[in-house]
Amino acid sequence: MITLNVDLGDRSYPIYIGTDLLGQADLLTQHIAGNSALIVTNETVAPLYLEKVKQHLGSIKHDVVILPDGEQFKNLDVLNQIYDALLSNQFDRNTTLIALGGGVIGDITGFAAATYQRGVNLIQIPTTLLSQVDSSVGGKTAVNHKLGKNMIGAFYQPKVVIADTSTLNTLDDRQLSSGIAEVIKYGLLGDIEFHGWLKEHMKALLHRDPSALAYAIERSCQNKAEIVSADEKESGQRALLNLGHTFGHAIETGMGYGEWLHGEGVATGMVMAAIMSCKMGNISEADVCEIKHLIELAKLPTHAPEALTAKGFKKLMAVDKKVQDGKIRLILLNAIGDAYITDDYDEDQLTDCINCSYC
Amino acid sequence: MITLNVDLGDRSYPIYIGTDLLGQADLLTQHIAGNSALIVTNETVAPLYLEKVKQHLGSIKHDVVILPDGEQFKNLDVLNQIYDALLSNQFDRNTTLIALGGGVIGDITGFAAATYQRGVNLIQIPTTLLSQVDSSVGGKTAVNHKLGKNMIGAFYQPKVVIADTSTLNTLDDRQLSSGIAEVIKYGLLGDIEFHGWLKEHMKALLHRDPSALAYAIERSCQNKAEIVSADEKESGQRALLNLGHTFGHAIETGMGYGEWLHGEGVATGMVMAAIMSCKMGNISEADVCEIKHLIELAKLPTHAPEALTAKGFKKLMAVDKKVQDGKIRLILLNAIGDAYITDDYDEDQLTDCINCSYC
Repeated sequence: MITLNVDLGDRSYPIYIGTDLLGQADLLTQHIAGNSALIVTNETVAPLYLEKVKQHLGSIKHDVVILPDGEQFKNLDVLNQIYDALLSNQFDRNTTLIALGGGVIGDITGFAAATYQRGVNLIQIPTTLLSQVDSSVGGKTAVNHKLGKNMIGAFYQPKVVIADTSTLNTLDDRQLSSGIAEVIKYGLLGDIEFHGWLKEHMKALLHRDPSALAYAIERSCQNKAEIVSADEKESGQRALLNLGHTFGHAIETGMGYGEWLHGEGVATGMVMAAIMSCKMGNISEADVCEIKHLIELAKLPTHAPEALTAKGFKKLMAVDKKVQDGKIRLILLNAIGDAYITDDYDEDQLTDCINCSYC
Repeated sequence: MITLNVDLGDRSYPIYIGTDLLGQADLLTQHIAGNSALIVTNETVAPLYLEKVKQHLGSIKHDVVILPDGEQFKNLDVLNQIYDALLSNQFDRNTTLIALGGGVIGDITGFAAATYQRGVNLIQIPTTLLSQVDSSVGGKTAVNHKLGKNMIGAFYQPKVVIADTSTLNTLDDRQLSSGIAEVIKYGLLGDIEFHGWLKEHMKALLHRDPSALAYAIERSCQNKAEIVSADEKESGQRALLNLGHTFGHAIETGMGYGEWLHGEGVATGMVMAAIMSCKMGNISEADVCEIKHLIELAKLPTHAPEALTAKGFKKLMAVDKKVQDGKIRLILLNAIGDAYITDDYDEDQLTDCINCSYC
């Protein structure tokens, strides 16, 4: 087992990465402070891993909320079901929420923990590649609003993240690829060596080679932990982690939550960010093609859906959280492995990016 | 004008207290960082003060949400109306929410600010005595859940609190008394000198003597600011501010939000806490009567409604945030002007307090 630390002063916490971690009771129980806990999971994950987690809780009073599976359920109404369960059980301020599932479960449970009685303990047990490398680490919690993704949320750190790589064996191929999109992102935004490694090991990842997966998760979490430690609340460099996300969220919102997976939106968004970087003269067409081919290799989409017009797309982008004082801030590339944040670009070039094709 | 500072490191902020502060544009505008703002107010306050605030916003893009008036509207559905307005206007992360109204407006707008795009700027303009001395200061934000008051919320500090004492001239008598309940609380919990002053000046407060009101607000905010600075997130002594609140919330929730005003619940709760303190041998019956008479002098209730049985009452108390690992924590008095937090008490004595009468 590998332990990484996210260094955030009195909000620091460990990330455990390894196989069969759900079988080890103490990894979980040492981080439960009070005498009650609520597990939040979904209909897909519950039959697979719920009993494994429950058995460790022993004498700790606990209850379970099983939500429907999908991004379209990450909303205020479903959040209220979690509050209902907490209050019906009279769980107090010392209670612990355990998020058992992918990014949707982590985000909504995290937000419930941030806001129930103004903040209770949170444990993240991510069971998808996407949540293991991204959403469970760094304290971003949120629910969606019909007018924008992740528009309602809080920064709220967990007590621990337990990333059991064995859970990836039950992930379907589309979900696996969606997670790989975020893995590719870390290479592109700041880790050229890892980008090179990914080009060589993409097939191993798709074949779920355990050591390749463990390495990709560790390296991704390391990259993320460094950035988050330096800028917890995204006043500066943390925004680099949003590479591909402003474009991607527009696709996710525009198509209706759940139609495109988050990683699929991010994958296409990274290609669009690369094209914009090329149009601005930062990177070459060959670079764009290299990025696009790596993403295709991961069996991810690289083109925005035809259903979205350039005008509609930009309107959707304008409600993203990266907008400041009316101007959409973009994460672009100076080079592969070197991203930057900017609001200094040509609007027409941005429009041209939305429906164009390279390579 | 008096300026008090709440000292919380990089979350410090000033409280301005004085007459006709709403007429001074710069008090407001110097604290607006971005180029957009949303004013949240209610149907009672809007006709009185909305235009005064709006006229200062000049070229800042702004919109207004006018909510119905009352504690029963401090819920997730109404909160969503604020998110709708923010998103329909495409207001970004640099926007400022301005809470113009009493405690309900301050609490719900504060929570909206804490959670919209994971946190935007907040300005509190409290227009009731209760919110000027209590809810707008200290960063507690919340909405109610049908199973408990203030159960969903966050600690989130405003950029500034503007307490214009002229707004108290339009407050009805019952609301004024409700605010005085919180003023009385500061004397009881830790400021014996102020308690003495209140006994002498209660009539002046009820007659809305401007200098008496200004002094009571300043002294209350000073007391609160000191306690909050030392313990922002209520891990210790801040809980003293909840004197009377565990009992009071049970009444508010049990009777249905809006039936009893918050200060009315707190007033009765303080009498119950005094009776419990007397039963435990901390204070004399004469002390209980002194407290009760001061509260009666302020035209506030001192007895829980007959509709609530002792059993029902304790069940309602058990969902309060002061509960830790199943035991209700009480704020009791060692003496008038000296409160303490405890979970070491006799359950039967607590039951006896609920429907008894002293003096």
